[in-house]
Parts: sequence; C-alpha cells; structure tokens
Amino acid sequence: MRIVLAGYGNVGRSLHRMLEERRRELLRRYSMDAIVVAVIDRGGAAVHWKGVPYSEAAAAKDSEGTVAAGVHGRRGVTVLDLLDEVEADVYVDTTLPNFTDGQPSLSYMERAISRRMHVVTSNKAPMALAMPALLEVAEQKGVRLLYSGTVGGGTPFLGMASEALRGNRIRAIRGVLNGTTNYVLHRMETEGVSLEEALREARRLGYAEADPRIDLSGLDSAAKLVILANHAMGSNYTLSDVRYSGLEGVTPGDLREAAKRGKALRLLADSRRLRVGLEEVDSRSPLNVPANLNSVEFEVEELGSIYLIGRGAGGPETAAAIMRDLVQLNAAQPRR
Amino acid sequence: MRIVLAGYGNVGRSLHRMLEERRRELLRRYSMDAIVVAVIDRGGAAVHWKGVPYSEAAAAKDSEGTVAAGVHGRRGVTVLDLLDEVEADVYVDTTLPNFTDGQPSLSYMERAISRRMHVVTSNKAPMALAMPALLEVAEQKGVRLLYSGTVGGGTPFLGMASEALRGNRIRAIRGVLNGTTNYVLHRMETEGVSLEEALREARRLGYAEADPRIDLSGLDSAAKLVILANHAMGSNYTLSDVRYSGLEGVTPGDLREAAKRGKALRLLADSRRLRVGLEEVDSRSPLNVPANLNSVEFEVEELGSIYLIGRGAGGPETAAAIMRDLVQLNAAQPRR
Repeated sequence: MRIVLAGYGNVGRSLHRMLEERRRELLRRYSMDAIVVAVIDRGGAAVHWKGVPYSEAAAAKDSEGTVAAGVHGRRGVTVLDLLDEVEADVYVDTTLPNFTDGQPSLSYMERAISRRMHVVTSNKAPMALAMPALLEVAEQKGVRLLYSGTVGGGTPFLGMASEALRGNRIRAIRGVLNGTTNYVLHRMETEGVSLEEALREARRLGYAEADPRIDLSGLDSAAKLVILANHAMGSNYTLSDVRYSGLEGVTPGDLREAAKRGKALRLLADSRRLRVGLEEVDSRSPLNVPANLNSVEFEVEELGSIYLIGRGAGGPETAAAIMRDLVQLNAAQPRR
Repeated sequence: MRIVLAGYGNVGRSLHRMLEERRRELLRRYSMDAIVVAVIDRGGAAVHWKGVPYSEAAAAKDSEGTVAAGVHGRRGVTVLDLLDEVEADVYVDTTLPNFTDGQPSLSYMERAISRRMHVVTSNKAPMALAMPALLEVAEQKGVRLLYSGTVGGGTPFLGMASEALRGNRIRAIRGVLNGTTNYVLHRMETEGVSLEEALREARRLGYAEADPRIDLSGLDSAAKLVILANHAMGSNYTLSDVRYSGLEGVTPGDLREAAKRGKALRLLADSRRLRVGLEEVDSRSPLNVPANLNSVEFEVEELGSIYLIGRGAGGPETAAAIMRDLVQLNAAQPRR
C-alpha cells in the first residue's frame, strides 16, 4: 500500500512515525505493507518510492520548516502535481480545515479520487461541506473515502456506528463532540474560573488551538455532527443544514446554578434537531463528561441508548484513527 | 443463508420474529436472504426448507410447550439429528448455559462445525469453558464462530473491540458486565433497600432470572470476562483462569458509606488481574453506571481509556446481537 501523505503538522508527523515504527507488526498482523512514498507540506514534497524515512522528513521540517529540505526533497511541488505524478494507492489528507469552501483540501481529494486513489482524511471541512458529493464520486470511481480522523479521532465514534452496530438501526445521535469547549465548561463549573481563564488553561494543556474560535462558536461540533449523522444514518446533510451556537455569554454562575439543580450545561450536538448549542443534561447522564472528554449517545432502535465516551482528537489520536482506516482499506483490497 | 435455530426461549423467539419481520429490509440493505429452515427446542423440531413461519412455531410453543407441535413439527428430534440431516449454512445456538461442562450446547456446536456450518451462539457456557479450542476447530474447518450475543447483547462490547478499535492495541479491559447485580447494587445504594428486596424488584422488572445465583456469585461476569478478553486481546483464557466473587455479604450501609467518600461499590471484572469482585470506583467514573446498565473501560495504547455504556442482555437485545453476527457472516460469504 503506497501512501501519499499531505500535511505535516502534529497529525501527519505522528502518522508517519507510527507507520514506520509499527511496520513489522502491521505486516504480521494485517499483511499490510504500508510505504509512505511521498510527504508534502506547503513548502514542497519529499518523494521516495522505497519510502520517505520519518527521520529525514521530521528533521527537514524542524530545521527548515518544510519536508522538502531533505535529500529526497523537492521544493515548490504541490499536492496536485504529486497526485498526477506519483504512483500510489492511497492519498492521506491531514491538512488544516477551511470551513469557507473546504479548499485547497477539497480539490486535492477530488483529484486523488479522479486518479482512482483511495482517500483517507482527517480534515473535517471538505467532509462537512461536501460529504454526499464526495462519497458519490468515490463510489463512481470505485475507490473508498474514509474519514475516521474527522470525528473524535481519539474514540471510534464512526466505527461504532458503522461496524460495531452493523445490522442495527440508529435513530438519533446526541453528544459532546468538542473536547476544548467541554474542558472549558468543566473548569468553569467545578473551579468557578472565567471562560477566558479556562481557555488559557486549555491552551497550556494543549487542548485548544491558538485560534479557538472554531471550537468556541460550535462550528467544530456542527461539522462533526454532519459527518457522524451522515455516516451513521445514511443522511445527506451538509454544514448549511445545521444551526449552531457556542459558549457565547455563559458564566460560571450559570453552570453552578444548574449544578445545584442536579444538572450540567453541555455543548450538545443533536441529529434530530440538526442543532448545536448549550443544553442542560442530568448530572448523572453519561453525556456529562469531565475534562476534555467527548461523549456520544446513540439511540438504537433495537438496543435503546448506548454511550461511547473517550478522548477527543489530539495529533496521536487522530493519527491512530487514520491508521484504523488504512488497516480497513488494506483488508478490503485484493492481494497483489 | 439457511439457518438452524436451537433454543426457543426469549432469545430464540425474538430472533425468529425479527428475521421474518425484517426480511425485505435485510435483502435490500445487506443482500441477505435469511431462511430459518429449522427451529428446535427440548420437545423436538419444526422443519421446512422454505422457512418455518414464526407464527406457527410461536403458537405451537405457547399452546403445547414445543415448536414440534405445529404442522411442520417433528417431535423427539434432537439437535444432533437435525444437524446431520438438514442442509443449512448456519447453526444458531440460543440454548441456556450450563457452566459445569457446557453441555449439551458444546457438542451441538462441535457437530455443526464438523459439518462445516458456521456457528452463531448466545450461550456463554461453552464459550467460557472452551473458547480457544472451539475457535481452533472452526478455523481448521474453514467456518466462522461468532458470539456477539454472549457478552452484553444490548451493547456491542465485542464489536467495539474487534471492529471499531481495529488497528489499535487494547491493553486491558475492566467493567460492569452484569446488569442484574448492578441494578441490585444501585438500588441498595440509592434506596437503602436490602439485597433481597432489590433482587425481588429486579425480578419484577424482568432484569433477573428465577435462579439468580449465576449472576450474584460473579460467575456470569467471569464468563463474560473470559470471552471479552480473548476476543479483544487474543488471549486464550478459560473460565478456570478467573477468580470470582459476587455480592456476598454486601450491605446498604457499605454502599452508603462509600458514597459519602465519593465512591461507589461495583461488581467489576478486570482482565489484568483475571478477577471479578466488588471494588470501589470514583462516583464520577463512567464505570459507575445506574440501574441495570453495563459499562466497559477499554484501555487502548494509542487512545487512553474508552468507555462503552449500554444495556446488558435481554431477549430482544441478544437477538439483535445475533442478528449483527448473521449480517457479518453474510457479508463475508461468497455469493452463490
């Protein structure tokens, strides 16, 4: 399985290292021979048909800011160039989300699909904006489009829906899909700190981005709701179908007052109402998770409510989610 | 997919009805043409190559205590006879567990495997006593042995481990695997009722069997721990490897005293120590679930702790778990 890996931030690097470190184990356990034939960031690419070494790409990135600075480096090369040129089986997109139009990732994914490469992505934006269309094109071209890393990379919410619950009917999904805002709410409630202070803590702990607006506004949760609902229930929503709001105006007082009544305020995404916003849940509800955890309730016709709780996404968790997708792809591919 | 269904209690009946009711949907969604060519209970069988109608088998069972009393009925026929005689693809075992030696279900499963039929079982006893051997024989014969219904039929703990977490490494499992005892503990803690009273309630609500000793002693949890650990981590344990104890001697006072310290006593199964027993967990831990819920913590190397919470097994939930297995089998079978 020859892989082109785009994006060399936390996620891309973690994945590259993981694929290299676990090479033997992947071969043994899954007969999966994964070779990263190219990595690419904004400065250019590193390309080697036998596999770009992690040490080379990471050192180049660290010292000169781009993977293109190593011995196999090619400065100025773009993802579109690479996809046209390099022979590969899978395009892995770990680039950053742009919720305005999903670009440039959206065109990268389309190009990879048109060249009959499978696509594995952790970039939520193109999926939230154009998931139904992307899946349709992928099906037409006979390739797979997998995206476990887009929702709760740290916890397999998507796999839960499509694999562990296969054969059952999921009626609705509701949950905490953003770890940053949950951490902020948790600290405001239990420590009485202000939103700004809680956010500073979150940043110190690496739970929040430098620009946390996508989290705080509810946009990140809305994007995940679209992807999770479509995946679990076969719907065809896009981001414009979801109304969302975030933590605007909430105070420690609001949270403490709710706690006195045995309730907790949580930023909930709800597939029934296609809505993201602050809502009260029972304090003992499995949706009332602490710290930066995520929690999703799956309402299953045959089983009642099932809750899945775990970490949201960090770099290594998202890389692990991409790894799950690659293993799944490998299992589905005919042996060569 | 021609199915022989053994056992016609709550689970067997629910499954039979579900397969009939969802026939069209299963065909459409999964290209799965499931025909129950025989059902069998202690009184005999009902056999029809075009499918035994649910209404016939259920009416016969209700009126005369055996499915053999209907128009397609054959009194006195045994499962071993049936397996030798009837052409089928899958043997589904919903018979009751016997933890002494796993019989007669164990020999039924062996016979089905030796006749190269796939086996789907909800009977924990043969699995807990002989899972490694059974899986080995099934592999030798080129058939599948699936058992989602044995552990948390109401919540896909097994599928979570093997499918949703595929590609990750599960290091340990810990959790509440028995709904009856959890309900009893929850009522003792929150209402201060005695164990006996809580158990009577559980029985009234249909959460406990007439003979609850298998639950109360920790045996049921121990059996599930064996199956779940083997499934999730590739171990080869059998029931004799697990030390277990149950609710013996616990009082409402113990539970309330723990609650005052922010703790809850729960009957926990632990794969690291191969042990089932009462343990304190933090009150806010996702393992401290109310009522008859189950909760399992998966310690995953790449992801940290993931919790899955949901109902334990009732008849319809276990039938739904078997259904998941059948759908999975169907997807893996070559088309005829």
